[in-house]
Amino acid sequence: MSVESQLWFEEILEISNGHTFKIKINDVIERFDSPFQRIEIYDTKPFGKMLVIDGVIMCTEWDEHSYHEMIAHVPMFTHPRPENVLVIGGGDGGTIREALRHPEARRVDICEIDGDVVRLCKKHLPSMSSSFEDPRVTLYTEDGARFMKDRPGTYDVILVDSSDPIGPAAVLFSEEFYIDMKNALKDDGLIATQCESFFYHGDIIERITGYAKKHFAVPGYYYTVVPTYPSGIIGYCFASKKYHPLKDFSPERVDAIRGRLKYYNADLHRAAFALPSFIRDRIKL
Amino acid sequence: MSVESQLWFEEILEISNGHTFKIKINDVIERFDSPFQRIEIYDTKPFGKMLVIDGVIMCTEWDEHSYHEMIAHVPMFTHPRPENVLVIGGGDGGTIREALRHPEARRVDICEIDGDVVRLCKKHLPSMSSSFEDPRVTLYTEDGARFMKDRPGTYDVILVDSSDPIGPAAVLFSEEFYIDMKNALKDDGLIATQCESFFYHGDIIERITGYAKKHFAVPGYYYTVVPTYPSGIIGYCFASKKYHPLKDFSPERVDAIRGRLKYYNADLHRAAFALPSFIRDRIKL
Repeated sequence: MSVESQLWFEEILEISNGHTFKIKINDVIERFDSPFQRIEIYDTKPFGKMLVIDGVIMCTEWDEHSYHEMIAHVPMFTHPRPENVLVIGGGDGGTIREALRHPEARRVDICEIDGDVVRLCKKHLPSMSSSFEDPRVTLYTEDGARFMKDRPGTYDVILVDSSDPIGPAAVLFSEEFYIDMKNALKDDGLIATQCESFFYHGDIIERITGYAKKHFAVPGYYYTVVPTYPSGIIGYCFASKKYHPLKDFSPERVDAIRGRLKYYNADLHRAAFALPSFIRDRIKL
Repeated sequence: MSVESQLWFEEILEISNGHTFKIKINDVIERFDSPFQRIEIYDTKPFGKMLVIDGVIMCTEWDEHSYHEMIAHVPMFTHPRPENVLVIGGGDGGTIREALRHPEARRVDICEIDGDVVRLCKKHLPSMSSSFEDPRVTLYTEDGARFMKDRPGTYDVILVDSSDPIGPAAVLFSEEFYIDMKNALKDDGLIATQCESFFYHGDIIERITGYAKKHFAVPGYYYTVVPTYPSGIIGYCFASKKYHPLKDFSPERVDAIRGRLKYYNADLHRAAFALPSFIRDRIKL
């Protein structure tokens, strides 16, 4: 008789209301309760290693490039000289890895509230977390919203690589936070923030892009494909004091790093802002 | 004591190799073994009614618009006068519904091998299948590959709305079929065919776009977001004898039907051809 046990991870999201995503697991690598949340790292059969926080898939080695390249390069190729960059969240290191590819980036601050996320990703996910070793990086283990209040007029680009608006990330989806980001930017600064899927979260996207419209000269919304996220896509709120993501974009700078990119390219930068009618007509950017 | 039973549909695809998609079901509406395949229709909790063939999700009422609008409108707004249209497969009626929105369409033939798919969709999925009542439509219950061989120089546009290249649809992914489509088109005709996800099927996409490059003056590949398909996206092979999908596209014609579209718009038409670097560099169109 031959017997084989099977181990499955199942993501059960309240928002998705009656569907789940199941992934075959080779091994549970870490399961740790930090002061903020449950952090899990799995070795999956189809997607390599996977980071899960409070039961929600944050990233897998297989498709994290799409998410991290698009959150970083769309704003950083829009800004003509992105020298001072702040990342809020992003404790796995994937977003700073992409920001650091820009030769203009002289200083990359990252403010992640949960030091245990950084510690465990450094241990198990080096393809993302080795970026913490770059001398341009300073890690702050603090509350991102509070951190920003103390640094007016400091940054060219702010990237908010957060989890969903429940738990510790809820404050990052408030209007006050968008006002604080505006103040922490220089006069020509700009931001991109994780902002959900237009198939499930039209309400959140409408609210957040509303803050962008109210407080920034150039609001926008763009998206990318990430198969292991609900609905297979995730979007970003873009907001800028001066530069327009299509009119001021510098495609010629892309050539310098294109050999290291798997997903992002200049055509995709432009295309990512073209939205389906049902969400375009709702958010009216 | 309170007891509630739960019914779940689980899609287990060989290609996806270790992950599944589970959907909560209110009711099993149909389960029928036709001479070709198993046809199931479910009433799902999150996605309305859902058509499943041989265990694979074909469409749900919730997100079918994205798939059907994009397979039909990208080629039909590229062709300046899409009068004679052939749909291969597409027994649910969603693709002909979209083709019929074009005032230029005078004749829409549909060739679906499995009459039971049409019969059951007519019974249970009227939002798609009511399009079969349009007087411009002629339904042929035949093998699509053979059907086309008898009609040289007949069509302006051919749309292949097929299932995956296993079972009865396998022949629709052969080089011979692409040569037959070329022959069934008029001298300025063009096609779009269901052509899988670039996250899972780079090999199929490379092969099929290879046929398009070899046999057509203008090859292309574009994609759309369909959350209930594996990876959340699906792509289409585009191939044309004369018209270019971006240079010859007529965005001014879109306005006439835009009020009836949920997904497609002129910006998205152009954006859909912008591919991630990893697949763009592989298929080199």
